[in-house]
Amino acid sequence: MINSQLINPSSIVVIGASNDLRKAGGKMLHNIIAGGYTGKIYAVNQRESQVQGQNSSSTIEQLPNVDLAILAIPAQFCPSVIDELGKNHKTKAFIVISAGFSELNEVGEKLEQKMIENANKYSASLSGPNSIGIINTHYSGVFTTPIPQLDSITGCDFISSSGATAVFLMEAGMQVGLRFSSIYSVGNGKQICAEDYLEYLDDKFDPINGSKTIIMYLENISKPQKLLKHATSIIAKGGRIAAIKSGATKAGSRAASSHTGAMATSDMATRALFRKAGIVYCSSREELISVASVFSYKRLTGKNIAVITHAGGSAVMLSDALAQGGLHVPLLSGEIAEELLEYLHSGSSVSNPIDFLATGSAEQLGIIIDFCEHKFDCIDAMVVVFGSPGLFDVENVYKVLNVKMDVCKKPIFPVLPSLVNAAKEINYFLSKGHVNFPDEVILGKALCEVYNTGAPSEPSNIENIIDIKKIKSVLNTPTDVEGYLSVEANNTIMDALGIPRAAEIAVDSEYQALQAAQKLCFPLVMKVIGPVHKSDVGGVALDINSNNLVVEQYKAMMEIPEARGVLIQKQHRGIELFVGVSHEHGFGHLLMMGLGGIFVEVLADIKVCLCPCSKEEIVFRLKNLKGYPLLQGIRGKPGVDIDAFAEIILKISHLTEILPEITELDINPLLGTGTDIIAVDMRIRIEK
Amino acid sequence: MINSQLINPSSIVVIGASNDLRKAGGKMLHNIIAGGYTGKIYAVNQRESQVQGQNSSSTIEQLPNVDLAILAIPAQFCPSVIDELGKNHKTKAFIVISAGFSELNEVGEKLEQKMIENANKYSASLSGPNSIGIINTHYSGVFTTPIPQLDSITGCDFISSSGATAVFLMEAGMQVGLRFSSIYSVGNGKQICAEDYLEYLDDKFDPINGSKTIIMYLENISKPQKLLKHATSIIAKGGRIAAIKSGATKAGSRAASSHTGAMATSDMATRALFRKAGIVYCSSREELISVASVFSYKRLTGKNIAVITHAGGSAVMLSDALAQGGLHVPLLSGEIAEELLEYLHSGSSVSNPIDFLATGSAEQLGIIIDFCEHKFDCIDAMVVVFGSPGLFDVENVYKVLNVKMDVCKKPIFPVLPSLVNAAKEINYFLSKGHVNFPDEVILGKALCEVYNTGAPSEPSNIENIIDIKKIKSVLNTPTDVEGYLSVEANNTIMDALGIPRAAEIAVDSEYQALQAAQKLCFPLVMKVIGPVHKSDVGGVALDINSNNLVVEQYKAMMEIPEARGVLIQKQHRGIELFVGVSHEHGFGHLLMMGLGGIFVEVLADIKVCLCPCSKEEIVFRLKNLKGYPLLQGIRGKPGVDIDAFAEIILKISHLTEILPEITELDINPLLGTGTDIIAVDMRIRIEK
Repeated sequence: MINSQLINPSSIVVIGASNDLRKAGGKMLHNIIAGGYTGKIYAVNQRESQVQGQNSSSTIEQLPNVDLAILAIPAQFCPSVIDELGKNHKTKAFIVISAGFSELNEVGEKLEQKMIENANKYSASLSGPNSIGIINTHYSGVFTTPIPQLDSITGCDFISSSGATAVFLMEAGMQVGLRFSSIYSVGNGKQICAEDYLEYLDDKFDPINGSKTIIMYLENISKPQKLLKHATSIIAKGGRIAAIKSGATKAGSRAASSHTGAMATSDMATRALFRKAGIVYCSSREELISVASVFSYKRLTGKNIAVITHAGGSAVMLSDALAQGGLHVPLLSGEIAEELLEYLHSGSSVSNPIDFLATGSAEQLGIIIDFCEHKFDCIDAMVVVFGSPGLFDVENVYKVLNVKMDVCKKPIFPVLPSLVNAAKEINYFLSKGHVNFPDEVILGKALCEVYNTGAPSEPSNIENIIDIKKIKSVLNTPTDVEGYLSVEANNTIMDALGIPRAAEIAVDSEYQALQAAQKLCFPLVMKVIGPVHKSDVGGVALDINSNNLVVEQYKAMMEIPEARGVLIQKQHRGIELFVGVSHEHGFGHLLMMGLGGIFVEVLADIKVCLCPCSKEEIVFRLKNLKGYPLLQGIRGKPGVDIDAFAEIILKISHLTEILPEITELDINPLLGTGTDIIAVDMRIRIEK
Repeated sequence: MINSQLINPSSIVVIGASNDLRKAGGKMLHNIIAGGYTGKIYAVNQRESQVQGQNSSSTIEQLPNVDLAILAIPAQFCPSVIDELGKNHKTKAFIVISAGFSELNEVGEKLEQKMIENANKYSASLSGPNSIGIINTHYSGVFTTPIPQLDSITGCDFISSSGATAVFLMEAGMQVGLRFSSIYSVGNGKQICAEDYLEYLDDKFDPINGSKTIIMYLENISKPQKLLKHATSIIAKGGRIAAIKSGATKAGSRAASSHTGAMATSDMATRALFRKAGIVYCSSREELISVASVFSYKRLTGKNIAVITHAGGSAVMLSDALAQGGLHVPLLSGEIAEELLEYLHSGSSVSNPIDFLATGSAEQLGIIIDFCEHKFDCIDAMVVVFGSPGLFDVENVYKVLNVKMDVCKKPIFPVLPSLVNAAKEINYFLSKGHVNFPDEVILGKALCEVYNTGAPSEPSNIENIIDIKKIKSVLNTPTDVEGYLSVEANNTIMDALGIPRAAEIAVDSEYQALQAAQKLCFPLVMKVIGPVHKSDVGGVALDINSNNLVVEQYKAMMEIPEARGVLIQKQHRGIELFVGVSHEHGFGHLLMMGLGGIFVEVLADIKVCLCPCSKEEIVFRLKNLKGYPLLQGIRGKPGVDIDAFAEIILKISHLTEILPEITELDINPLLGTGTDIIAVDMRIRIEK
């Protein structure tokens, strides 16, 4: 729970304050004072009566009432101090920077529980423990440096699972001019987790007078649905979010769990969640900083980039990076291009990249930008690469750039690579409130990441035609011991959803089998009824094309233990497709889709969405399958009816809303042709 | 041609020298003087008698003999100045920094040709034009800044197609402590190209007293075989090379060609060349700097990395990056791990990442490193992440790190992320000759790139059993108009190489067709003889399993224009494979391999080697195919005889040596089973 006393306290006490700035309690107090906190400041130190010029109490008792207490004392004392402050001093917010809690051992975990209980007793916020604290426009409540100068409108809000990572990211970000609005270090985060800070930022979101960018470093996602809800809401209001969720690999999760006891969530689920919410997925501090820097500029609304440069090499590498990431560097030619060329030195090129040579001037840069802004309609954004060989000052160039970046409607991204030769001019440029991208390729990749992360899409509504009651009726039918629904129940669901399935007849005698064969026509598929893992016990036979084979297979299958009968199906042909669902704790249902066969088994060519989803989202994901050309049809071979496939997947998404009890679902294969898609085999597992 | 006068001149004249340091001729002279050049310096300036304290001539005539002339004068004057200097002043080397040559227009191109002719007349080196010049331990012959302090043993030699990119890379590299040994700016490079500088570095390579790392920024590869030869040679002598070849995409090539008139070479050919040579392929300045920084440390000899940190978050992201790139962060446990744990603060983790907490000391770091060096046999290298929250000085930690990096045999890579809080200590660390990796993930990716770039492999020798004479005999057989060999010639080659092919009989009557069918047994494949693109004209029929069909297809195929007969083949089953060859100008033959069908057509799952190659290289490449599990056999389905497949590919590599006239070759498909691989269809095109 986040309350106003945590965010904007009228008084703060540092418990364990010190004159020694090498100690956390000392530096914390120092930062609060130096940060110009305007409320009342108290200090508790057992031995000193004055700490950093503030009157200090030796005991808690001597304190007046105080809104926020920051604890920098050994873990064992924290629970009782919190209790006393809550009981006798109306303290409603705590930041515990001490370590030695659940991240250490079981004793620490119990201390943490006790501490949280005590805070909860007084409805108090508890940030941490094991965190570096909080920086916002009201106070600088961290024991670390640097303290970035905050900008509550153009800066970004930063939520971090790791205090050290927050520090390192601020250090690196400040170098390129990235600005911050607030920093929230989550620490062990058992009472206030990262998602709670996001909720707070959502509630206070103000697209005009507040910051619009949020970046997060997450080691676990304890409340995925909460994350999704508030991220979606913030983005819908015009905000932008980028995040690292580390621990994507086994080695990484081990590292994460030793760090903050984070639970490993599958990277697949995280990515599906981020995609649904519209959060840009990042894997390094540098990537997060670059994406946040892109966010700090005007929004990229199209994929056509003009690369403007006086340094050919950078333009080549940047063009490669943009093209590889799916953005365009469109060729510029024709009358307007010719006209522009006349303003430039002989030897310049305007075909895009627009290279105005090492001798290019500030005035020429201004003209080029104006052409891109007003005359080249096919251009959506500009990147300007301008460094210095060290011959002369480039301040006049950066001045033009600064003005144009303000007045142009199209976004302009600056690459100022001369960290040595143009250090002074870059500082001037940053002082104007800009962020610099020192490496053109890193900018290129970040632009592509941002562009390729779609906006959140609203889930489509459940269609009226679906017979919900009929579907829910399967909950009253028996499942097998592992929780799988019966063939009949599966069929009930498919029929209620309107998903075509292969014609089939269940038989339990040779005579019935032959009758069924006649009715369905060869070729046929025969499957044993009873055993779950049919293939493994020889319970599936394909290409049955004679009465003899029908009888032979029937007999063989009925010999399989647990066999209760045989299912005879019409054998269909087509491209193998699949749809699957798995339930990921906390996240909800993940919808998986793709082509079947080797595409799943060998190539892992699977796309994943978080349910419930929209048809647009499904179509978008299908288009990103490596095997998508097969769905479209290649080399004269027919593809499948992609719209029908997307419709079936959408119905399965709806199904997870109707039957949240589903823990696992597989329709594999569906056989698709240009006209039909037919479900051939399905398994549904539920947990009532 | 690179001569000693270019590399180590005993006298230098700057033509177009100036007192104005904002002019290239002024800055050039300044840099040479400031760089402490010990030979004689002359200046030519039309108006001044003294330039920067040096006596200046107003005309060339007045000059004495001089080894190296640096030209900073308009392009139109360069050819005659070079002629005069070569004729009358024994000048044997020129650096032309002026622009306005082939990169500008046709007039410039002619000037450039003339200038080169003049230099050649006197056997003089000509570096440039349109370059920034040369920096080596003898002189600082560039007009740009910064001039890095050179280290001829631990620094890297840097060859750059782009002067500005060279400047920007030096600026960024110097920030992290990357050292340089020499810089060669190629410019238009028509007389001395990048490959010539590489040859020079190869010739002078000294693994003890010279630099061992070369980095290159290339916009074109004009002499691929020369690049291959010297890169391979340098790496064999213990050197290490990383390079960017920009212009990988269409947009990028357009940018490159407008920049230096670079010819677009396919990225595929470049990658095959780099792989063969053992050059690490990079795509950005930052990547190149990171890889060069990795090169500056001891060599990574195994894939097991210990991640040592006091900051959990960095360790998690780094572990993810290493694992995703194929390196290991092995779990450490057992007695030794327990023993190490006793030296650390409570709450530390040694399971790897080794996290010794925010409170970890320099002494503990030393102990951890010693354990990794001496006791954990499974560890090949260490990464130490150590920043500062700003509470206290970390110099003692960096001192320990500095010592351990020197004494340990296992490489230690430092991540010092606190660019603000530990700026002073990082500078101390860099002053000890180290390079810093500010971002852990960027280091992780660079380590993986380096580790995954194999050493160059010697091509296997041509087997004696191949009947070379027989193969060469096909050159005397007629080809079709497009240069394709006849079916008979193809078969001659396959048989001489000992590549099994499908049994087949060519027929030109119905009667012969039926006889052939009887001999080969159903099912059969029938292919029209005559037309090249058989499939497109309905000239290929599969699954022929009756005499009626044989007759029917025979009649239909003989109706196709240009049909001269029909080829009847036994229809084989198996996994579709393919081998192909294409000839890339200058590079030689590229060998392509993979699975057939959708793997080529949809997934572009193709691996490419530069001929001639070794079997190890082929096997290595096959293992990297996405479809490799299919070759091994999955889910009980048999795979193919991978060794036999590699052997066939190797034979095709040999074939390109025997018949360099081949411009295009396709064996597609080969059908592979667990025991046999049979070539079913092949096309070979030659250019005599």
